[in-house]
Amino acid sequence: MSKLNIGLIGAGRIGQVHAATIAYRVASAQLAAVTDPIASAAQAVASKFRIPNIAAHYSDIIADPNIDAVLICTPTDTHAEIIQAAAAAGKHIFCEKPVALDLAQTDAAVNAAERAGVKLQLGFNRRFDANYARARQAVTSGEIGQLRTLHLISRDPAPPPISYVKVSGGIFLDMTIHDWDMARFLTGSEIVEVYVQGGVMVDSAIGDAGDIDTHVTLLRFANGVIGTVDNCRQAVYGYDQRVELFGSKGAINTQNNYPNNSVLSTADSVHRDLPLNFFMTRYTEAYAAEIEAFVASVVNDTPVAVSGQDGRAALLVGLAAKQSYLEGKPVRLTR
Amino acid sequence: MSKLNIGLIGAGRIGQVHAATIAYRVASAQLAAVTDPIASAAQAVASKFRIPNIAAHYSDIIADPNIDAVLICTPTDTHAEIIQAAAAAGKHIFCEKPVALDLAQTDAAVNAAERAGVKLQLGFNRRFDANYARARQAVTSGEIGQLRTLHLISRDPAPPPISYVKVSGGIFLDMTIHDWDMARFLTGSEIVEVYVQGGVMVDSAIGDAGDIDTHVTLLRFANGVIGTVDNCRQAVYGYDQRVELFGSKGAINTQNNYPNNSVLSTADSVHRDLPLNFFMTRYTEAYAAEIEAFVASVVNDTPVAVSGQDGRAALLVGLAAKQSYLEGKPVRLTR
Amino acid sequence: MSKLNIGLIGAGRIGQVHAATIAYRVASAQLAAVTDPIASAAQAVASKFRIPNIAAHYSDIIADPNIDAVLICTPTDTHAEIIQAAAAAGKHIFCEKPVALDLAQTDAAVNAAERAGVKLQLGFNRRFDANYARARQAVTSGEIGQLRTLHLISRDPAPPPISYVKVSGGIFLDMTIHDWDMARFLTGSEIVEVYVQGGVMVDSAIGDAGDIDTHVTLLRFANGVIGTVDNCRQAVYGYDQRVELFGSKGAINTQNNYPNNSVLSTADSVHRDLPLNFFMTRYTEAYAAEIEAFVASVVNDTPVAVSGQDGRAALLVGLAAKQSYLEGKPVRLTR
Amino acid sequence: MSKLNIGLIGAGRIGQVHAATIAYRVASAQLAAVTDPIASAAQAVASKFRIPNIAAHYSDIIADPNIDAVLICTPTDTHAEIIQAAAAAGKHIFCEKPVALDLAQTDAAVNAAERAGVKLQLGFNRRFDANYARARQAVTSGEIGQLRTLHLISRDPAPPPISYVKVSGGIFLDMTIHDWDMARFLTGSEIVEVYVQGGVMVDSAIGDAGDIDTHVTLLRFANGVIGTVDNCRQAVYGYDQRVELFGSKGAINTQNNYPNNSVLSTADSVHRDLPLNFFMTRYTEAYAAEIEAFVASVVNDTPVAVSGQDGRAALLVGLAAKQSYLEGKPVRLTR
Repeated sequence: MSKLNIGLIGAGRIGQVHAATIAYRVASAQLAAVTDPIASAAQAVASKFRIPNIAAHYSDIIADPNIDAVLICTPTDTHAEIIQAAAAAGKHIFCEKPVALDLAQTDAAVNAAERAGVKLQLGFNRRFDANYARARQAVTSGEIGQLRTLHLISRDPAPPPISYVKVSGGIFLDMTIHDWDMARFLTGSEIVEVYVQGGVMVDSAIGDAGDIDTHVTLLRFANGVIGTVDNCRQAVYGYDQRVELFGSKGAINTQNNYPNNSVLSTADSVHRDLPLNFFMTRYTEAYAAEIEAFVASVVNDTPVAVSGQDGRAALLVGLAAKQSYLEGKPVRLTR
Repeated sequence: MSKLNIGLIGAGRIGQVHAATIAYRVASAQLAAVTDPIASAAQAVASKFRIPNIAAHYSDIIADPNIDAVLICTPTDTHAEIIQAAAAAGKHIFCEKPVALDLAQTDAAVNAAERAGVKLQLGFNRRFDANYARARQAVTSGEIGQLRTLHLISRDPAPPPISYVKVSGGIFLDMTIHDWDMARFLTGSEIVEVYVQGGVMVDSAIGDAGDIDTHVTLLRFANGVIGTVDNCRQAVYGYDQRVELFGSKGAINTQNNYPNNSVLSTADSVHRDLPLNFFMTRYTEAYAAEIEAFVASVVNDTPVAVSGQDGRAALLVGLAAKQSYLEGKPVRLTR
Repeated sequence: MSKLNIGLIGAGRIGQVHAATIAYRVASAQLAAVTDPIASAAQAVASKFRIPNIAAHYSDIIADPNIDAVLICTPTDTHAEIIQAAAAAGKHIFCEKPVALDLAQTDAAVNAAERAGVKLQLGFNRRFDANYARARQAVTSGEIGQLRTLHLISRDPAPPPISYVKVSGGIFLDMTIHDWDMARFLTGSEIVEVYVQGGVMVDSAIGDAGDIDTHVTLLRFANGVIGTVDNCRQAVYGYDQRVELFGSKGAINTQNNYPNNSVLSTADSVHRDLPLNFFMTRYTEAYAAEIEAFVASVVNDTPVAVSGQDGRAALLVGLAAKQSYLEGKPVRLTR
Repeated sequence: MSKLNIGLIGAGRIGQVHAATIAYRVASAQLAAVTDPIASAAQAVASKFRIPNIAAHYSDIIADPNIDAVLICTPTDTHAEIIQAAAAAGKHIFCEKPVALDLAQTDAAVNAAERAGVKLQLGFNRRFDANYARARQAVTSGEIGQLRTLHLISRDPAPPPISYVKVSGGIFLDMTIHDWDMARFLTGSEIVEVYVQGGVMVDSAIGDAGDIDTHVTLLRFANGVIGTVDNCRQAVYGYDQRVELFGSKGAINTQNNYPNNSVLSTADSVHRDLPLNFFMTRYTEAYAAEIEAFVASVVNDTPVAVSGQDGRAALLVGLAAKQSYLEGKPVRLTR
């Protein structure tokens, strides 16, 4: 069987991560073309991963009949447009999250892919992480019985540059988008109400940029489960990524990942080194696994693990959370 | 110096715990009298702890000029009355929580003690627990910097009898009362808003009795900290008592207490025995420490560790939570 | 039923611990007399625990027909003599470890008790500790299958005074005596060979006093199990008391005990406070449990949990270890 | 700068692991040729990793002037011969452990490489593992002060086939060889005495094949440190790989690695999934890191991390351990 030909659109940091996965870990696919507005970036990636074709523009990749699927690793404001173009050309699509920062563009893109009958998988990488996957398994296997409550903690080691904050769409669409997806994924249910308490606790410049940096949001799910999300742009001890699921037969708590499992006892304390503090290191395996899953979905024509509708649903929660924060009251979600 | 003479009012389970503390751990005090509506209970305690005087009624103890202080270990609906009587007689008072289930009675009792100039300490034993005390220390010492968020987990191993549920005042005043106090104690700030999500997830009979068994409540504090409380009447793995405090310089997470610290690795899993599942075993040391602190406050004439106002404040939060649950919206607290 | 009358011989640190157990935790026994060469010590203990009779000499206690049993909490060099005297008078005996530092005295004492038909329990308190008891249970229950190897770690927080080192009998009879007993207890088998590697690593003054402060000893048991003991007179992080048992169906590892179960994450590390570092705090419950067990053995006329033969066996291993160290070769034990 | 040309000798399991490292993780090197007695194996590896040249015999690779270095991934009994041939041809050499099962062949190979002035690095992969590396760092950094004792645990999940046991050289040269190296690496000192206690506890067929499956060995090091190695061919809970280092300023304990960091609490226990149980999964990163280090040593002409002398030293300890076991007494090492 011939290999799936992949076109890489966007040769930045995350584009390179996915390129490495295709090149080194996925036997059934190969990188056939790459493009990036910065030509040198495209060339570097092409050279490193032996990609035969450097395209001047993403439309050249989409127009290429040899290309079976594309990986969209460009800035968020280009996602919807590229998805629609790729869908129109019948290409299967893996796209980084979020599809867009508003519902209209998101729907346009997601609907385009559905109409075209192409696969569209979104980059909610945490679903593929061993800890979160184990937590989900504890629910689906019945190990912890009927789920009652959920607590998600996601804290970044340090805030992004203010320039990024300004175009990020705000914490609820940029950072918490992962937690909205995790909440849906782990409970297997839709969020029906959100109530946000938040503020600027890390850096007043984030407030000046019109965003907040810390929030705790109370969630209600369609299946009756109650949950919380705790987000902060800064945790001095590292990248804090945990969840607790509590049910009628037990609970599961994930712990952070560490660079090593050594414990030191000295005259001061019993201690270990700090958790991993870079998201690409923390989620190395999850990034690879999501691409492997995408290729498998295309090759085997099976449903993708994270659909466009999943992206739309997470966006809806993010928009409701934003509204809750601005209005200072609980917001019920409508679909 | 002569010993402080203590009168024990109520010889039930918790009364016996406090009697043992006075008898065995507090050199500066002694049990001088005991009373209980069940005469045999009073006699048994008197015999076990060599208490010289068995009183027919609590008023006899309060009338006894030899008695310096009383421990009120009777049902909640008698607390306010006994506090007022004891205060009027100039006795120092340790009283189990809560003072009462309504504000008027609570104020009457708390104010009576204040007017009389006697000590009134309430039985919020968790403040004296090594884990929670260490968490508070992490805040006051500056170890974790400026506090940002708080997450309290308190889950009972099994629900109480339905007969108890009916007279308990409801989960927010009975069970969560400890968490309201912990939240205030750990943050050093007042709760200014509560929003409850809750329901009946454990046993429909609890719902039939007019109560719920599970809730997660989102809190806002006067100092800007955001918090949550997760309460459930049933955790199959034991008595789940934990808190996470997150601040600008770090975080502290308390873990449960276990009957032993042995870890077993077998072909199935790496595991340890379940956490302690009885509140009296879990908080043995805290119960002793609160009585030691009360006696020290009386002997040294220093402020009590948990005041009547602390009891009033926790009650206010509980009432607001009840209102939030019934009305389905956030409730701001007024004082 | 009347209470067992106990005579306390030796009112020092450990004597007071046992007195508290009898006074506060053992309903079926009472302290009837106390003696100590330092009269003020005896008086203080008598006053604190309301002991009616202060004897001038231990022989007065032994001669007292009201006394049923004695607790021998005197210096080691007096144990054998007192045991023999008490046995001759038909008193049941709890004696701190070791019986004596040589075999002849040990045998004389142990045999005297056996001939007299009185109970003789030795103070190997660790058998009653929750962690070690759980480890033993993992063997007897079959949870870890057929035992293969054993690793005992026992490290003191700091070395004793040199004056004590000089009269202690040396590390193998003073400190390691607990590990010899634990090794026998946990495996349920006799040690048949020892080989010691050790030296002076903590303080040269210990070497000047004719002792060593650190050793690792390789053990062979009659049932084929292989074990090690690691002892050091100084661990800067606290009192290090652990064991690993490895068998055909699994392993059990005990961990140290801590003053609290809180974990701090800061910019430096993820850490917790140091383990308990005082043996009386670490083994508080074990000290109480061994006295409860002794009283129960006497009251119910059941075998003691730690016999004179157990003391003899541990001494034999200690003497063999000493020989192994001095001769620099493995020593097989004969009985 | 042109890339280092690597010849892969042996296309089996570990050869493929190293091939992947060169292909995917080492920018400064490339696979130029591969050989394997099983032609299809060589072809499969060549195809997967795009290796341009499939050699019929290792001597063809060694004779190829384009080849700069070889990776020897063949059975142990061919190592010494290939090392000598490669050294004679001026190729740098990475060779799996051990060089040989006897000292004469080992010396011939190691000396040949030294005389030829080529790099010779041996495959003691554990030195590159994050846990063991952190343990070594705790020594070299002074964090735990002057080292006193060392305890190595290495247990396989299941014994190898009896056919392998027969040609393995025995547990001391096959399995424990890693521990001898770790012991030297972690202490930074030579082993001067070994005393073995061991036996057949897992499978009598191992005994029938002339080997044992379990041992604990007591070690003395030149710098005075005392250590133990606990080896077993079977641990039902997985691949057990830990070390404890204890020193004057503290201790470090490494823990096993797990497939996830999730903890489950149910009505039975608080538990987590079993540790990783396959050496290639457990040491994935270490295998990659050792090859990266080898290439860096060649490219930068710096000393290798694990020398031929390290291999010789580990072999000497293994031979002494074998002698100790057979003779039933401690064996001092001579060099």
